Amino acid sequence: MTDNSFQFSLLKTDGGARRGRLNTAHGVIETPVFMPVGTAATVKAMTVDDVWATGAMIILANTYHLMLRPGAERVERLGGVRRMMGWDGPLLTDSGGFQVMSLGNLRKIDADGVTFKSHIDGSSHRLTPQRSTDIQHMLDATITMAFDECTPFPAEHDVAAASMRLSMDWAERCRDAFVNRDGYGQFGIVQGSVYPDLRAESIKRLEQIDFEGYAVGGLAVGEGQEAMFATLDTTTPLMRADKPRYLMGVGKPDDIVGAVARGIDMFDCVLPTRSGRTGQAFTPRGTVNIKNARHADDPRPLDESCACPACTRYSRAYLHHLFKAEEVLGLMLLSRHNITYYQHLTRGIRDAIDNGQFADFANQFYETRALGDIPPL
Amino acid sequence: MTDNSFQFSLLKTDGGARRGRLNTAHGVIETPVFMPVGTAATVKAMTVDDVWATGAMIILANTYHLMLRPGAERVERLGGVRRMMGWDGPLLTDSGGFQVMSLGNLRKIDADGVTFKSHIDGSSHRLTPQRSTDIQHMLDATITMAFDECTPFPAEHDVAAASMRLSMDWAERCRDAFVNRDGYGQFGIVQGSVYPDLRAESIKRLEQIDFEGYAVGGLAVGEGQEAMFATLDTTTPLMRADKPRYLMGVGKPDDIVGAVARGIDMFDCVLPTRSGRTGQAFTPRGTVNIKNARHADDPRPLDESCACPACTRYSRAYLHHLFKAEEVLGLMLLSRHNITYYQHLTRGIRDAIDNGQFADFANQFYETRALGDIPPL
Repeated sequence: MTDNSFQFSLLKTDGGARRGRLNTAHGVIETPVFMPVGTAATVKAMTVDDVWATGAMIILANTYHLMLRPGAERVERLGGVRRMMGWDGPLLTDSGGFQVMSLGNLRKIDADGVTFKSHIDGSSHRLTPQRSTDIQHMLDATITMAFDECTPFPAEHDVAAASMRLSMDWAERCRDAFVNRDGYGQFGIVQGSVYPDLRAESIKRLEQIDFEGYAVGGLAVGEGQEAMFATLDTTTPLMRADKPRYLMGVGKPDDIVGAVARGIDMFDCVLPTRSGRTGQAFTPRGTVNIKNARHADDPRPLDESCACPACTRYSRAYLHHLFKAEEVLGLMLLSRHNITYYQHLTRGIRDAIDNGQFADFANQFYETRALGDIPPL
Repeated sequence: MTDNSFQFSLLKTDGGARRGRLNTAHGVIETPVFMPVGTAATVKAMTVDDVWATGAMIILANTYHLMLRPGAERVERLGGVRRMMGWDGPLLTDSGGFQVMSLGNLRKIDADGVTFKSHIDGSSHRLTPQRSTDIQHMLDATITMAFDECTPFPAEHDVAAASMRLSMDWAERCRDAFVNRDGYGQFGIVQGSVYPDLRAESIKRLEQIDFEGYAVGGLAVGEGQEAMFATLDTTTPLMRADKPRYLMGVGKPDDIVGAVARGIDMFDCVLPTRSGRTGQAFTPRGTVNIKNARHADDPRPLDESCACPACTRYSRAYLHHLFKAEEVLGLMLLSRHNITYYQHLTRGIRDAIDNGQFADFANQFYETRALGDIPPL
């Protein structure tokens, strides 16, 4: 093992929660980790310095969006996503599978891949396991995801089984297409909807292929938190303990706390940046809608425990004003705040596991949330 | 004179160009100076740190916008515009006059002021010399502007004369209403359209009232650069040399160079931030439309001589991508670039005057502009 190897170390466990460290070519990732989403090679309304300042250690970008605009070959000529956008840390790219499946009647699936029309200009494109893997190579992803079919929810057992098995065939093709480099890795994605037997079969197939990490896919697609946690309860115990586990597209803060308790190491979600753009702020005491009139005269910070610029330098009244006046600075500040909150949350989780106090941490998290926002002055 | 006094020092002249220094309660302003516009108590798409980093020494905010939203009394409760928005430097507020005059049939003018309907919710409001001055006090403006009627262009001589004389009556009322504090000042505004005799009369009236500074108003309203410069040629020589001169709402880079040559010290304009939001970038070689397809694959910086983050860290191709994808980061970066360019331009002007080389500077400015953008690769 060199310093530049792609290597996951499980440092500690605390109940089901895991504390880990993932070494990559582009930096070390302490887990559990939340990865801000930079869909089009920018974490929306934030500079890369802003992203670093929140404590983020890895970001995500989307193959689907980047292959359409500016185009994978163009990104490659510009040195990859990381160089193009000035992000020095590790980058994870999704495979494009989730987005093309969401295109509805704009896409057609066959045994070898998916043909689809661009949502931008209607032009025709095709993604296959080979092409998705090649594109992620061109994007210079530190972590490449397998191209799979995200099984819709709900799905009957036989539909979910067929979908999962197609994804497992594709996972093999993705692995064959993956050009490994020191410190880079590829993750397979466990499918099988809410059916434990299918999840078990999927895990077995993926571990036979042997990836550097494993994601749990097909959740957070409408099944609800209870079903998601139930699926994790029967899924993560079957997964290798010595590899990182990534729950794709999750989630709300309480989703993350619950999933960490069930053995998940990595998360991504558009929620903090998307909510930031609509005036929704995450705080330890729950969500605050800064556009609400109750904040119009409130000189207090959004969250007095938060170290971000929105909280240390501005009043709720000013943030409220920025959103009412539709000023870009409002989006900028709330995006920074929300990503800071997610990083603060995952840092707290890591510290708690380090100290063997994850259960206490989780209890306090729920109790503080239950308080609700501070009362009006 | 204390350190905290409002004091203009004329340090040097070079032809018609003047190098000055304006001491205020909130910091020193080296002139000629460009003041970024923060209409609604935010320089659009920039943090105050971003604004400082460009070299800006003073910003402007708009009485009209702030009195409607969030409201002058509310801003006062939050400690004034500077404290509310976290800007530690000097602040100039306009009087609201220009904006309410632009409301067309939503406003009604009388001898004592203007009654108008809000563009936001149609509610009825009134601005008078007293009220405008009071509001600017509540906003905690370092520099308060007199409330005047911005004479439309074109205007016949008798119309322009009546309008100017109304503004001069109002200027007296504004001066009476002004509550002076150490290091704060109030500027009168010279009107009179393009008529030298009216401008001369206006200057005489204002100097009898005696302000801390004088603005030239009623220009950059459609008369064109030639008429604007011709008006300055007959106006600034009549103005007191020992007070700062502010050309309101100007302008393009070549407007600024030409107006400095004609003895103007202070400028403001929405152009750099507004253009930044539409993909127009100012460079020494003229304006670049970053949305143009020629930039899509260009790995070179927007302006290799510029020290802003957009130029030091990103390619034209990435900036082009951000604008095509309508990403907020594009607006953020180009706004910073354009304000940086304006500050770089005015710093160059100041250095040139310091060295007695303003004419050479202006020649080189025009020659470089004439080169046009760098050729495609």
